[in-house]
Amino acid sequence: MAGNSFGNIFKITTYGESHGPGIGVVIDGCPSGIELDLTFIQAELDRRKPGQSKLVTQRKENENFVIQSGVFEGKTTGAPISIFIPNEDQRSKDYAHLADAYRPSHADYTYQMKYGHRDYTGGGRSSARETAARVAAGAVAKTLLKTYQIEIYAFVSQIGNLKIQSESIDYTKIESNEVRCPNEAVAKDMADLILKTKKEGDTIGGIVACHILNCPIGLGDPVFDKLHADLGKAMLSINAVKGFEIGSGFSSVTMKGSEHNDIFYNEGGHIKTKTNHSGGIQGGISNGMPITFRVAFKPVSTLMQPQPSVNSSGEEVVLEGRGRHDACVVPRAVPIVEAMAALVIADSLLLARAYGLGQP
Amino acid sequence: MAGNSFGNIFKITTYGESHGPGIGVVIDGCPSGIELDLTFIQAELDRRKPGQSKLVTQRKENENFVIQSGVFEGKTTGAPISIFIPNEDQRSKDYAHLADAYRPSHADYTYQMKYGHRDYTGGGRSSARETAARVAAGAVAKTLLKTYQIEIYAFVSQIGNLKIQSESIDYTKIESNEVRCPNEAVAKDMADLILKTKKEGDTIGGIVACHILNCPIGLGDPVFDKLHADLGKAMLSINAVKGFEIGSGFSSVTMKGSEHNDIFYNEGGHIKTKTNHSGGIQGGISNGMPITFRVAFKPVSTLMQPQPSVNSSGEEVVLEGRGRHDACVVPRAVPIVEAMAALVIADSLLLARAYGLGQP
Amino acid sequence: MAGNSFGNIFKITTYGESHGPGIGVVIDGCPSGIELDLTFIQAELDRRKPGQSKLVTQRKENENFVIQSGVFEGKTTGAPISIFIPNEDQRSKDYAHLADAYRPSHADYTYQMKYGHRDYTGGGRSSARETAARVAAGAVAKTLLKTYQIEIYAFVSQIGNLKIQSESIDYTKIESNEVRCPNEAVAKDMADLILKTKKEGDTIGGIVACHILNCPIGLGDPVFDKLHADLGKAMLSINAVKGFEIGSGFSSVTMKGSEHNDIFYNEGGHIKTKTNHSGGIQGGISNGMPITFRVAFKPVSTLMQPQPSVNSSGEEVVLEGRGRHDACVVPRAVPIVEAMAALVIADSLLLARAYGLGQP
Amino acid sequence: MAGNSFGNIFKITTYGESHGPGIGVVIDGCPSGIELDLTFIQAELDRRKPGQSKLVTQRKENENFVIQSGVFEGKTTGAPISIFIPNEDQRSKDYAHLADAYRPSHADYTYQMKYGHRDYTGGGRSSARETAARVAAGAVAKTLLKTYQIEIYAFVSQIGNLKIQSESIDYTKIESNEVRCPNEAVAKDMADLILKTKKEGDTIGGIVACHILNCPIGLGDPVFDKLHADLGKAMLSINAVKGFEIGSGFSSVTMKGSEHNDIFYNEGGHIKTKTNHSGGIQGGISNGMPITFRVAFKPVSTLMQPQPSVNSSGEEVVLEGRGRHDACVVPRAVPIVEAMAALVIADSLLLARAYGLGQP
Repeated sequence: MAGNSFGNIFKITTYGESHGPGIGVVIDGCPSGIELDLTFIQAELDRRKPGQSKLVTQRKENENFVIQSGVFEGKTTGAPISIFIPNEDQRSKDYAHLADAYRPSHADYTYQMKYGHRDYTGGGRSSARETAARVAAGAVAKTLLKTYQIEIYAFVSQIGNLKIQSESIDYTKIESNEVRCPNEAVAKDMADLILKTKKEGDTIGGIVACHILNCPIGLGDPVFDKLHADLGKAMLSINAVKGFEIGSGFSSVTMKGSEHNDIFYNEGGHIKTKTNHSGGIQGGISNGMPITFRVAFKPVSTLMQPQPSVNSSGEEVVLEGRGRHDACVVPRAVPIVEAMAALVIADSLLLARAYGLGQP
Repeated sequence: MAGNSFGNIFKITTYGESHGPGIGVVIDGCPSGIELDLTFIQAELDRRKPGQSKLVTQRKENENFVIQSGVFEGKTTGAPISIFIPNEDQRSKDYAHLADAYRPSHADYTYQMKYGHRDYTGGGRSSARETAARVAAGAVAKTLLKTYQIEIYAFVSQIGNLKIQSESIDYTKIESNEVRCPNEAVAKDMADLILKTKKEGDTIGGIVACHILNCPIGLGDPVFDKLHADLGKAMLSINAVKGFEIGSGFSSVTMKGSEHNDIFYNEGGHIKTKTNHSGGIQGGISNGMPITFRVAFKPVSTLMQPQPSVNSSGEEVVLEGRGRHDACVVPRAVPIVEAMAALVIADSLLLARAYGLGQP
Repeated sequence: MAGNSFGNIFKITTYGESHGPGIGVVIDGCPSGIELDLTFIQAELDRRKPGQSKLVTQRKENENFVIQSGVFEGKTTGAPISIFIPNEDQRSKDYAHLADAYRPSHADYTYQMKYGHRDYTGGGRSSARETAARVAAGAVAKTLLKTYQIEIYAFVSQIGNLKIQSESIDYTKIESNEVRCPNEAVAKDMADLILKTKKEGDTIGGIVACHILNCPIGLGDPVFDKLHADLGKAMLSINAVKGFEIGSGFSSVTMKGSEHNDIFYNEGGHIKTKTNHSGGIQGGISNGMPITFRVAFKPVSTLMQPQPSVNSSGEEVVLEGRGRHDACVVPRAVPIVEAMAALVIADSLLLARAYGLGQP
Repeated sequence: MAGNSFGNIFKITTYGESHGPGIGVVIDGCPSGIELDLTFIQAELDRRKPGQSKLVTQRKENENFVIQSGVFEGKTTGAPISIFIPNEDQRSKDYAHLADAYRPSHADYTYQMKYGHRDYTGGGRSSARETAARVAAGAVAKTLLKTYQIEIYAFVSQIGNLKIQSESIDYTKIESNEVRCPNEAVAKDMADLILKTKKEGDTIGGIVACHILNCPIGLGDPVFDKLHADLGKAMLSINAVKGFEIGSGFSSVTMKGSEHNDIFYNEGGHIKTKTNHSGGIQGGISNGMPITFRVAFKPVSTLMQPQPSVNSSGEEVVLEGRGRHDACVVPRAVPIVEAMAALVIADSLLLARAYGLGQP
């Protein structure tokens, strides 16, 4: 396997499965002298963890993390920061019936074909638990970005057919409800829809929107490493994500250029745009406006109802989810989207420092 | 600037501006012994070039390329393949009025802020001409993929509000019309819409869909380098792209899991899925079904009508496009989407060879 | 900090300091299905550990490792392999006197200037303990190489002025003595020299030679990634290494071409060379002959005698080593040299598989 | 083939063979706003080119280069800088007799085995001509380094058995003679030795030493990417190089620690070391003292005398060099060593800027 690292200058490497000793992440490239707040890292992990509300899986996981290196007297030393999160509730027995069968729309079949030898207890590296490592690393990246006043807010903008407009958001409302939708009325309907779907033994998808505020002008590079291309890859690497759009996104295809172009104006010496269809990025480079994007999550594949499938001998079998699974993963995906965004921005920021901004 | 390279094992580096001596690409990591067909490379370049039909810009560019290295007696040697495409029609005079002004929704402003020193004659690295280098490299990648029977078909599935369903496509019809839409009736309406928009001095967006057939099972990696994450980054790195979706994409968010899951079945010893909402990729790894994705293109930013803007002193100016520009770039984007897809698959394929598939 | 990763396809990332919870390594890119022998990994760690003989530091470290991921039912799964080695004997008190002083020829001063904030308890990432992580990863790489019959033998060829010719070696004798020199008579003199130096409170350097046998023809790339350039970087990244030479090395500069050229001959259908001044690598690519190189280690910097230095205020201080340190690190460096060689060859081997050898 | 790129942040990619249209380099990651002096680039190329003195091959190559991108109004734009050097004197006929034979100690045999399909006209990517691309890129790197007052001086310190001490050098004398040895008396003996060797149809090796002055404190990283490890890889990637040593190098192995340690002292507020056995690098990080290293070059493999060899059928053949070849490549290697050193330092410098030096 390759591809367990992300980033170039601010780079993380994750490891671990849901049913071994634990999962972890090594962060290489964090500047020295950054004060780390362990309470903040824990809070971020808690936003992602299962069992935090009645909307999500009731599987309990205490995300107690250990920092194993790279921090001295509360501050980063510049050395790699290793964060380990032990697994507490392994329960491999839940998975014995899956050793040989391929769950629909999971990675079982592709793993078996690619690797020959497969850890069937918990999905291997495709376990959603892997994202806890991303959130821990993202908390470190966010801490770095705070020194630049950069803020990142993700929130749920759609569950099934229920949606809000994601343009003008009261960020203080995001954590006011279990769905993490800043419109509380719609949030209530969304919660009802998730619970109803859960009762049916079914699952439902949704959209997470994300705004990055106060991003310096000049992050991203104009050709292959456009800032939104890196954000897109980051988001598409999250489990269950099926789509990504920046700014106007797919809605731009029905617009005329005269309607879509963001007109520049001078606001007290600062150049801004009247609209933000560009989503804060032009020619692959941040322009100082809020960076806005949206991420589509499919419905979870594990259903509490029987489904036909085949096993590794090609025989027909019937599978049904056991244990405790999410009917909708979207509210828990909010901190993951923020973490991946923070990693991309931290990496782009350090790279821009390397080249200078507007000077040799 | 960074980010002028793409890929890890099959890796390209591009360079050049639209108003210098030319543009080029160095392909490093192509296996030796591949027979290159120069006519095929030329044909691919011709599919992208301006002036090929009445729908696109009438600016003439003869994409005559030179292979400068890496090929001996018609076959690749394993050495880096350098392809250079001289510029013929530079006409910098068209751009003198832009030296100081920021065109709306172009990269002028972000370049100025990021680099301080800017080549205003033709958009620098943000010129659409840069994509010719991608198409040339993509033609080499396609040649490698042909030895595996892998086929890649992109086509226009939407212009403005006019759209076709992209599921069952007659690939032989794609090149039958200037829009590159395989449904000829809709293609005619699309052509009319583009010409009407052009007359208005305006521009219009659209969607390019892409199908990758016969892709071996096992390409892509499960965590950060999911195959669709790499495809997403590749597509989002193309100028004017605002969104990417794999398989069911954004439409998955309104589906229930029971509806969305792709049910496995055994067809004469081959395991397939009854539906393909996964878009041929599960857990980040190709599953042998067609890989299907869609790419959203915004309307072109250069308009043949006056638009307000500001210059580098922050003063208000009025800009109007001069010369010959596309009213809709989507038909010409088809070969670019194919090229980037070919580069991603070639890279994933070589990487999978490194690790073996299903064996040590 | 950057640079805690090594390799491209078979890639490791290390972390940890000598005075925190422990050190570790994440191996990404090991093919699946490789049987791992935990006893072998332990034996390799034991060859490196302090306290193994009277020649080396008597500081006790039990290198008990834990595999945290990537192995299932005794075989690699293709997922990242995380190996953690807890620290047992931290004793930070030994270092309190060093918080502010710069030990001669250590990394104290450069760390302080580069990072501003420094973990002075044990040398941070410059601790020799970091090499345990390399040895653990090297044991996994060696296991992969064994499936290709590739063998790696490092040994001590020089301590101070005492040396052996490194051409014809009885590899079974290497571990027969505490110096790891295959000539037992010279080994005894070397042991005496080390003990004498130790009594003087001083230290002494030496040379580790290394032979790689049965390496397939075709590893390495002809330009920047020549196989010996990668080996050189690997060796020079080991603490205390001051020089690297491949094949004839520095002795080649006094030779004529007619003397130095390795003449090809045909031995029963196999092409070999009569001499091996090339050290098994020609044009950066392995040629099937034994790969031979030598690595120079300086004398250890920590002395059991007073030395003048300065502190961070620029004031003069006198320092003297405390605790238990090696008078000669060279015997313990043997497994580290082998580990780094194994990592380079494993990486080159997988890369060569990607491109095919002699075929597309 | 892989490995035609070097560097991470300041990154070059080279291509081309000696008997095609030309060779070239793409420099990605040079900051914008650097004034390029074309005369200086030409002068650097001329220092490397054949035919510059009676000591080296009389083969004429006019290294006329073209900058194809990345420069506007005399300054870098931040875009990739492409430099192309056309081949003028191809003369493939000289090589027809080599199509099937393996020249001793060349890359012919390993290329044939690795790639199957081989360009035998001029050595492919193993041609010494490839180094012209490095020198051109190195000239750009040197220009960047000059803005930091960093100076790089390489010189010949040994030819055969004739040597000078490389500690105290008058850098203004280096270019005073054709050998590029700053001791003019020894230089004369060296020139005589080279001419005598040439008359014998033989070749001879030598050593290039290099000093880097005014390098900022803090370049390099402490683990795998130690500054001297990167320098070592850079040097070992040059054709004909067999060894590399930093500071005291191989001579350190016979020294005691009490003799080898570099004692710190305070010189007017600046911390320096009394000796410089460390070669300006401690713990992998530059310490502000001159960086000093030495590079061993073997005698050239092409001899003007008959040598036995085998062909691709394994049959015995006799080969003799034709055309014009160097009897000693070491004087022409001086600018190549400087160029590779400049590339390493430029890359390390930009990386250090990314992380900040001593501050977050």
